[in-house]
Amino acid sequence: MKNISEIDANFKIETSLNVKGIRFFDIQSAPFKVYGVFKEGGVYRRMPEKAAAGVSGGVLALHANNAGGRVRFKTDSPYVAVKAVYAGVGKMAHFAISGSAGLDLYFTDNDGKEVYKSTFIPPFDVKEGFEGIADFGCKKMRQITVNMPTYSTLKELYIGLDENSVTAPADDYKIKKPIVYYGSSITQGGCVSRPGNTYQARISRRLNADYINLGFSGNARGEDSMADYIKDLEMSAFVYDYDHNAPSAEHLLNTHERFFKRIREKNPALPVVMMSAPVFLPDDNWSIRREIIKGTYNNAVSAGDKNVYFIDGRELMAAAGNDGTVDNCHPNDLGFYSMAEKLGGVLEKVFAE
Amino acid sequence: MKNISEIDANFKIETSLNVKGIRFFDIQSAPFKVYGVFKEGGVYRRMPEKAAAGVSGGVLALHANNAGGRVRFKTDSPYVAVKAVYAGVGKMAHFAISGSAGLDLYFTDNDGKEVYKSTFIPPFDVKEGFEGIADFGCKKMRQITVNMPTYSTLKELYIGLDENSVTAPADDYKIKKPIVYYGSSITQGGCVSRPGNTYQARISRRLNADYINLGFSGNARGEDSMADYIKDLEMSAFVYDYDHNAPSAEHLLNTHERFFKRIREKNPALPVVMMSAPVFLPDDNWSIRREIIKGTYNNAVSAGDKNVYFIDGRELMAAAGNDGTVDNCHPNDLGFYSMAEKLGGVLEKVFAE
Repeated sequence: MKNISEIDANFKIETSLNVKGIRFFDIQSAPFKVYGVFKEGGVYRRMPEKAAAGVSGGVLALHANNAGGRVRFKTDSPYVAVKAVYAGVGKMAHFAISGSAGLDLYFTDNDGKEVYKSTFIPPFDVKEGFEGIADFGCKKMRQITVNMPTYSTLKELYIGLDENSVTAPADDYKIKKPIVYYGSSITQGGCVSRPGNTYQARISRRLNADYINLGFSGNARGEDSMADYIKDLEMSAFVYDYDHNAPSAEHLLNTHERFFKRIREKNPALPVVMMSAPVFLPDDNWSIRREIIKGTYNNAVSAGDKNVYFIDGRELMAAAGNDGTVDNCHPNDLGFYSMAEKLGGVLEKVFAE
Repeated sequence: MKNISEIDANFKIETSLNVKGIRFFDIQSAPFKVYGVFKEGGVYRRMPEKAAAGVSGGVLALHANNAGGRVRFKTDSPYVAVKAVYAGVGKMAHFAISGSAGLDLYFTDNDGKEVYKSTFIPPFDVKEGFEGIADFGCKKMRQITVNMPTYSTLKELYIGLDENSVTAPADDYKIKKPIVYYGSSITQGGCVSRPGNTYQARISRRLNADYINLGFSGNARGEDSMADYIKDLEMSAFVYDYDHNAPSAEHLLNTHERFFKRIREKNPALPVVMMSAPVFLPDDNWSIRREIIKGTYNNAVSAGDKNVYFIDGRELMAAAGNDGTVDNCHPNDLGFYSMAEKLGGVLEKVFAE
């Protein structure tokens, strides 16, 4: 545990927060631990720029959105402030800015459970960055997780703490190797009201598991190059659903099993979860696609694979019913809750085995 | 049932929708029925301007937001388009524009259940208005409900249908007299992803009940003048929660029971539901306020009132847990689902009696 004054804070961070004795620290410095993203070329990214460029222009454009990015630490500061500096801000009409560009904060309570505390909401006209503060009202050692924006890119993130507080590294996740998620805009988190309500963030809290979000809005096509990138990651499980982004059932048929086999070849015992699109009332087109995805699963099972799981998209939305989306496609927080309930249950069993 | 060509459509509506044979109709014309709002002085309002002005400047500023406004009709048109013309558009960082300014469409399926079909989402930079279309893909008689924006004001709303379709009036609600809701920003619908996910809209679908939304963001203070306006409305039930907007516990104590008594005096047998703020993990301050609200209920019961109901705000959020808000105050769609489950259950019993 370090007294905060011992941390290197030579740089002077400008702040408009009128809080006496606040000191800001770059999350790149100890004891802060960054998960789900890493800094390369001055911005936070989910995969290296070069690897993203090798997949598609769309993945290149989106790989530095910070979905699934987190910073974790412990402190007894009575408040936690953030200063976010953007390289790009996502703003969409079907998506609250709090969800596309905001951050939120969880703390670990006495039972070790992560509890939502506050959302850091950028102003509506935000461009370069903003600051926000979550006030606990009293000094007490707490483990903190700050979730980064789902559809925006940070170049800097600073954490502001009281100068008289102490800090320490966060505990490791119980499931240290990340669960890797690959998929569409839904995977990326469209359209949560705040980043802590994605299904991946919910499952991370439930299972105490690290994760990497490789959702690429409109651009998850099941490319070989993406499979080749993913297969070399350290993973505790792999979950994929790019049903919504496959341009046709034929495309899905040509890529879905192929994608799985590339991952499986390199990771013979990795738990792999395949999901069809989270649609509560699917039409015939969705049903055809679902059977293609289930086909990959059935073939693996027939070949003796004991580590594959299939989830029907209807079951993903079962707890939400037909009101779990904002636009008949992207889940709202109810839809994400429903997805997390179903997928979280499957993953909980996977890790209990 | 009328052939659409018989409806008076002399006015020429400009449209940017490239749909051959589309004809637009003002929702003020037959057979369209408007609920929850009415047109006065060229805009849709939830209460008369004069009555709103008599309450407060805040209520005056908000009374023409169209929360709870709906238009209903039947048609066999294979599509339903809308053309919305705004007098004012609400845009906030913690609220998707689809929720604050968008409209959504439900249709009644073969079982008589209202099913979500589409959201009409304005462009991000919308100012004066926009158009949208929901395509059913085939001609079939359907009952349609279009929900109006929660935090925006319409001056015109047109429905676009195929010129070869027929229209008819919607069925009356089973519970014809509206349920009247009074309260804060949460009551007004902050922050749903789309208007059909407010708790009132959900309860309306569940019970087949009309309703009026008198939620006034930040401005529900339990004024005598508001009670006097409400007490003269035709109502099947009255639900109120202005806990979040009462400036202090003392203010709540001075107004909450007084508000109830003004309503009760005029409506001796009206079912009245009192709720404390929907907060899952309330601190001491919330608990004090809750006891004040419960006090109104307890006193009524002691005095022999058989038509009062109390709901603890913790129960309103029970199904959502602590992740049912966007900002530790305003419910997201998960929070609204949770509120609708609890309050809908109470109202279902009320109407079964």
